[in-house]
Amino acid sequence: MSLDDVLAQIDRNLDTATNHLMDLLRIQSISTDPAYKADCDKAADWLVADLKSLGVDAAKRPTPGHPMVVGHVGEDNSDLPHVLFYGHYDVQPVDPLALWTTPPFEPQLEETENGTVIRGRGASDDKGQLMTFVEACRAWKSVHGTLPCRITFFFEGEEESGSPSLIPFMQEHAEELKADIALICDTSMVSRGVPSIASQLRGMLKDEFTIIGPRIDLHSGHYGGPGLNPLRELSRIVDSFYDQETGRVAVDGFYDGVHEVPADQLRQWQSCGFNEADYLNSVGYSQPHGEKAYSTLEQQWARPTLEVNGLWGGYNGAGSKTVIPSEAHCKITCRLVGDMDPDALRDKIRSHVSAQLSPDAKVVWDQDLEGSRASVMNIARPEFEAARGALSEEWNREAVFCGMGGSIPIAGLFKSELGMDAMLVGYANEDDAIHSPNEKYDLKSFHKGIRSWARILDALTK
Amino acid sequence: MSLDDVLAQIDRNLDTATNHLMDLLRIQSISTDPAYKADCDKAADWLVADLKSLGVDAAKRPTPGHPMVVGHVGEDNSDLPHVLFYGHYDVQPVDPLALWTTPPFEPQLEETENGTVIRGRGASDDKGQLMTFVEACRAWKSVHGTLPCRITFFFEGEEESGSPSLIPFMQEHAEELKADIALICDTSMVSRGVPSIASQLRGMLKDEFTIIGPRIDLHSGHYGGPGLNPLRELSRIVDSFYDQETGRVAVDGFYDGVHEVPADQLRQWQSCGFNEADYLNSVGYSQPHGEKAYSTLEQQWARPTLEVNGLWGGYNGAGSKTVIPSEAHCKITCRLVGDMDPDALRDKIRSHVSAQLSPDAKVVWDQDLEGSRASVMNIARPEFEAARGALSEEWNREAVFCGMGGSIPIAGLFKSELGMDAMLVGYANEDDAIHSPNEKYDLKSFHKGIRSWARILDALTK
Repeated sequence: MSLDDVLAQIDRNLDTATNHLMDLLRIQSISTDPAYKADCDKAADWLVADLKSLGVDAAKRPTPGHPMVVGHVGEDNSDLPHVLFYGHYDVQPVDPLALWTTPPFEPQLEETENGTVIRGRGASDDKGQLMTFVEACRAWKSVHGTLPCRITFFFEGEEESGSPSLIPFMQEHAEELKADIALICDTSMVSRGVPSIASQLRGMLKDEFTIIGPRIDLHSGHYGGPGLNPLRELSRIVDSFYDQETGRVAVDGFYDGVHEVPADQLRQWQSCGFNEADYLNSVGYSQPHGEKAYSTLEQQWARPTLEVNGLWGGYNGAGSKTVIPSEAHCKITCRLVGDMDPDALRDKIRSHVSAQLSPDAKVVWDQDLEGSRASVMNIARPEFEAARGALSEEWNREAVFCGMGGSIPIAGLFKSELGMDAMLVGYANEDDAIHSPNEKYDLKSFHKGIRSWARILDALTK
Repeated sequence: MSLDDVLAQIDRNLDTATNHLMDLLRIQSISTDPAYKADCDKAADWLVADLKSLGVDAAKRPTPGHPMVVGHVGEDNSDLPHVLFYGHYDVQPVDPLALWTTPPFEPQLEETENGTVIRGRGASDDKGQLMTFVEACRAWKSVHGTLPCRITFFFEGEEESGSPSLIPFMQEHAEELKADIALICDTSMVSRGVPSIASQLRGMLKDEFTIIGPRIDLHSGHYGGPGLNPLRELSRIVDSFYDQETGRVAVDGFYDGVHEVPADQLRQWQSCGFNEADYLNSVGYSQPHGEKAYSTLEQQWARPTLEVNGLWGGYNGAGSKTVIPSEAHCKITCRLVGDMDPDALRDKIRSHVSAQLSPDAKVVWDQDLEGSRASVMNIARPEFEAARGALSEEWNREAVFCGMGGSIPIAGLFKSELGMDAMLVGYANEDDAIHSPNEKYDLKSFHKGIRSWARILDALTK
């Protein structure tokens, strides 16, 4: 029995594995919206049952929010590593629903100019990616009768809603969760067909505020003119976040803790296959925006942002309403790099907003404080070189270490809470439309992703 | 039989009249939202039946939108005027519903520090005001057996949604609608207890636009930085509408056609009982905002505005979504004064927005073009003096001619389409929360409003 047998089994079983993934995609596990609590629970149950079918001792584990799924298989063996695999079964909300061409929770295969895709919410982020590892284990087990080493499975249901239960759960179950290294499948390839291992991730800060003007909604005929309009106030405040000339964030102290990318790393990134034109054109941009002094790649991987994710107030129904609303609302997130401290940054942003307020305008902030620092992977570990070799083999292309624009706080948490390094390998593409309408996962990503994990497991246990 | 008998009948009948108004308030005649089409129809039917009970030859008259109600009573008599009374039976949307303390369409009497109020959507704007005239007619008829002169009743169901059918209907039925003067009850008193006749009204321009950035919603981890965010773009554009230093609108040519208020008129306004502190404090302002060079009263009555009434884009549900949305939306209205031309102004605003756009940002404008010029009343007509005397009598306080911040295009349309002057008398108060949650009409406004119309009819027919 050899790796080739496992790979052949993966190829034979692809249809079944795809249909199986679609079962999971049908479950509407939107974690941020309390209306989908039962669906999150159902997704956890589905995964427990699936892991059990692989002989894994798996269970749904309650938290104050959505449950974790934890599974153990294999015995300690000093010759073999003990790996933990992490993924998340929750998904982003689907709005604006009207822009979906197929129902988000009725997954289907579609032919596109880039080949067959699995269309549906979570197909890429993260159910499809999560299942690449599970399917690799299933093939391994079917060929070898056992899994290659001791594996702990750890699936979260709150990744898309700030992971409120994650740290307490890790702390409470630290001994149970500790392994030699964490494997995480929740990232993209730097460019189509270029296998990628993340070397650094941006951190994240979320915040939300409401600007309050008049005590009640007003008639714009009666108060238009002398009345303070919170929509106008909010627009001015949001605009004040940025320096239009340079594209930089204009919040005082925002760039504290940000470091320039070393020249040699920058050269390596520039040759890693990132296609700026594709990256921009695929979503309708003719040129990069943002900080003018930095390349698109640097902005995405190594520069912080302050982004408005939602902004609303007044009347947004059909027709018109001549209202000066009492309130205007804004949701923001920041991406953090280097040594930026989320708590200090939150204070700076809040101070900036307060300093902009007109007389009679008030600001109320969200009470839910969330933030994670940027993280840098320990790519000197031998597992990274083993994975790079395995991925290069599978994809017929040198695998690269690259930055990532997204924030996967879990990587840093494995280090801070459990003292474990993490390795992030993912097969998503930039055009997967994760968090957007019409999310998809290339069937090729799914197929070669499963094969990649089989190769990585093989390389780690040789 | 004398005016006193009519007034006594009004006093005796107040409870019945109030309950009758509440029947009308229960009908959810929100004209801007197509979901309430049947309710608008029902309100028209209710009014037709009510007019018929007064011996008026009334009928519901179809339009491409919501129906008109037209009724005629009395014969031409060269000694007596022929008046047309105009009101509207449609109401504003009720959102944000959560801020109502009672259901908007379950009207009720409430005791407040300013006396009893009728609480509910439309209580003030305009069902309660409309019914002051109808109830005055009912009392007159009950005492005299007939109405005091020839009266045409003309009720519209699209006033809160831009009156799209009004001009065609007026043009088609010009002969039928012509009278000596139009009486309109849809305005406020300049201050609590100060009877007011409008001498000028602001015009209105509505517009709506969408800023489009990326082709699809993007993940702010992947595109945050180099990606153009339409929410940020929209905020910058809205902010650019204003000069923060002076409070003036910064759109090129915005003030074309605006005239300064003559000194003598300004003096008259300043002594008309307008209480700036009450006006501002009642809604939570400690000071006037807007144009720094003009008083609150001037801003409200004689200065133009560009107001944002709705602004939305991205995620606004519970929790957070790390999205850079594809679109951001904005609804605006302008109030026009003097000789401002709505069509020219629309072009100026659109040009301003286009000039602000970043590369890769697009703007799409609403196709529904609506605008009305400001109007000035012909207060030299004897009816104005007659009404001033009648109102002063009823309210024990000299009635005043005042400006109005709102836009009631109908006043100008009676002149431009039918060659008739109009006189606007209303009994609303600034704190009626029209267009807002918890709209109310003072029972005193309703009661003395009915009595005021009886006195005005008496004065006009003496």
